[in-house]
Amino acid sequence: MVNPSLLILAGDGIGPEVMTEVKKVIAWMGDKRGITFDVSEDLVGGCAYDQHGTPLHDDTMAKAQSVDAVLLGAVGGPKYDNLDFSVKPERGLLRLRKEMDLFSNLRPAQCFDALADFSSLKKDVVAGLDIMIVRELTSGVYFGEPRGIFTEGNERVGINTQRYTESEIARVARSAFELARKRGNKVCSMEKANVMESGILWREVVQEVHDKEYPDVELSHMYADNGAMQLVRRPKQFDVIVTDNLFGDLLSDAAAMLTGSLGMLPSASLGAPMANGRPKALYEPVHGSAPDIAGQGKANPIACVLSFAMALRYSFDLGDEAARLEQAVEKVLADGLRTADLMGPEGGTPISTSAMGDAIVAAL
Amino acid sequence: MVNPSLLILAGDGIGPEVMTEVKKVIAWMGDKRGITFDVSEDLVGGCAYDQHGTPLHDDTMAKAQSVDAVLLGAVGGPKYDNLDFSVKPERGLLRLRKEMDLFSNLRPAQCFDALADFSSLKKDVVAGLDIMIVRELTSGVYFGEPRGIFTEGNERVGINTQRYTESEIARVARSAFELARKRGNKVCSMEKANVMESGILWREVVQEVHDKEYPDVELSHMYADNGAMQLVRRPKQFDVIVTDNLFGDLLSDAAAMLTGSLGMLPSASLGAPMANGRPKALYEPVHGSAPDIAGQGKANPIACVLSFAMALRYSFDLGDEAARLEQAVEKVLADGLRTADLMGPEGGTPISTSAMGDAIVAAL
Ligand SMILES: CC(C)[C@H](C(=O)O)[C@@H](O)C(=O)O
Ligand SMILES: CC(C)[C@H](C(=O)O)[C@@H](O)C(=O)O
Repeated sequence: MVNPSLLILAGDGIGPEVMTEVKKVIAWMGDKRGITFDVSEDLVGGCAYDQHGTPLHDDTMAKAQSVDAVLLGAVGGPKYDNLDFSVKPERGLLRLRKEMDLFSNLRPAQCFDALADFSSLKKDVVAGLDIMIVRELTSGVYFGEPRGIFTEGNERVGINTQRYTESEIARVARSAFELARKRGNKVCSMEKANVMESGILWREVVQEVHDKEYPDVELSHMYADNGAMQLVRRPKQFDVIVTDNLFGDLLSDAAAMLTGSLGMLPSASLGAPMANGRPKALYEPVHGSAPDIAGQGKANPIACVLSFAMALRYSFDLGDEAARLEQAVEKVLADGLRTADLMGPEGGTPISTSAMGDAIVAAL
Repeated sequence: MVNPSLLILAGDGIGPEVMTEVKKVIAWMGDKRGITFDVSEDLVGGCAYDQHGTPLHDDTMAKAQSVDAVLLGAVGGPKYDNLDFSVKPERGLLRLRKEMDLFSNLRPAQCFDALADFSSLKKDVVAGLDIMIVRELTSGVYFGEPRGIFTEGNERVGINTQRYTESEIARVARSAFELARKRGNKVCSMEKANVMESGILWREVVQEVHDKEYPDVELSHMYADNGAMQLVRRPKQFDVIVTDNLFGDLLSDAAAMLTGSLGMLPSASLGAPMANGRPKALYEPVHGSAPDIAGQGKANPIACVLSFAMALRYSFDLGDEAARLEQAVEKVLADGLRTADLMGPEGGTPISTSAMGDAIVAAL
């Protein structure tokens, strides 16, 4: 049998450091479990710009299209802040999402028992929290045309277009309903149907897909501003949340922060099934490139390790291996091992990025 | 001297109940302090639709344009959920904002000492919190054209347009800088300049206005998704936040919920100065019409009372009277009086909407 293929794009800032730890896990899986991947590596973001003058080279894009899964670290940094919009590190990531057509972005917001004290929210509000935000990732205001800065009369005007087709909404809704069936069987869809026509269409299509194909799943609708409130007030009321690209960007970040474990949270971006039945897929931590701590051994590799666990589950049908890896992470946390970002008032043993990777492998 | 004029639009749901309590305060001011207003009343939202088939009658619009200030309760309710978009209760409110050109929406997120335990956030994260969100209110995706649901090929497409001109950004930025000078002298501007051109223009114009006119104010920029995170993580890092209409909608609701006192939070929507030097102005609570508790004496009138206090301060140059009213509210809370929404584990004396209004007047 051919080995499944994995393209690693470590990116900028702490990306390469956290990816080094994931590679230890990948090596362990080959050695001890006989699960081997054809791993290749390439550049994305600022480092790609430095090398090629573009945040994603066409060759890299082609590779990403041909592999079974992409694992990405993080992109961006102050060095690139003044680059032209079209070559900013983020454009590399956005191009991957768009051209691989990764329409369904899964962002679990999970509160780890060992870290419940770490949230800025009260422990009882977040302990045991486990919600899944499904964010549409290939359309909406991120990609809609017309867009740009134009001159009108004697002043500039900034324009972006929020745009959703019925089929774009339907496919991400399906992915949310499918996930809900494997979880708490509850979906809450968020938009601003009270002020945006695109929100009205969103609500209608989600409801139609529900009524025709998933009547067994509990569906509710909520305005996104109320959603932002309810996430702060009583996050455990949610199971799966489905929302558009821009609302998803804000709401999933707020939800991630509730857990107090930003350095812990993975994400999966999935597209349509390929010829081999696997979905097109890119996995990446929710956190950014954290240039302020890059290269100091302070980064937490767990979000990236758990992103690889999501790859095992969603791309390679290795749910058991994914669970084993997740348990290893929980064990390490329960043992009190903490990277710098996890050092709170309750103490723990401070360890480096690399020691955390080693500890996870040891726990496996 | 002519009395200043005030148009009361109580609206739907709990709107009329909370407004009744504000009228007690207005009456007290006339009786005891010789400050009298020419008060008129009219309909907005669902009740206007019931009466006139439109959520805001042209006559009401004309009245709103001619008075010194408008005080609004709340609009909307399930009864109107299936109305056509163009006559939904919200359209009445949006028409007022747009035609009065109320571009600067001030939303304080303040944590009241007596209620710090009430937040879902840890007490030390929110105690003493006092931030001011300045939300652009007359442009952006709320009003941009083209908009609507169209047919393309054989499917529907929902479209809205995010659109900001330089002058729209500059005027709301000025209003944020002016406010900051009277507070902590710090402004954080939020957008998604990493993915939206309208955000790039936003950032540039805010920076230009700062450099030319307010170099003494500390200015920072933050992506709105990070803003949502930081509000949850460490809200006290902010003084004044300035952002666009849609981001402001979500971020101000999240910020309001941090305080645990949603039923307590007022807002002011201000436009350009009128001939008499007063700004066009509309004041309203941040909370909605809460149809589930309407008519049961459970509503908290404090947000509406504090909205009137904002009117005293921003429209009528009666800052001292505003402060007196705010102190009366704090005293009532310190005395342990609590409407239903404020009854938490720490106890307190449960009282009705009307008893809360009476207590505030008594404390004055
Ligand atoms: C880096 C940026 C372009 C990106 C986004 O806005 O989608 C990030 O915030 C995210 O959520 O993955
Ligand atoms: C009622 C609705 C139209 C409104 C808005 O979206 O602006 C509300 O959420 C608000 O924030 O005042």
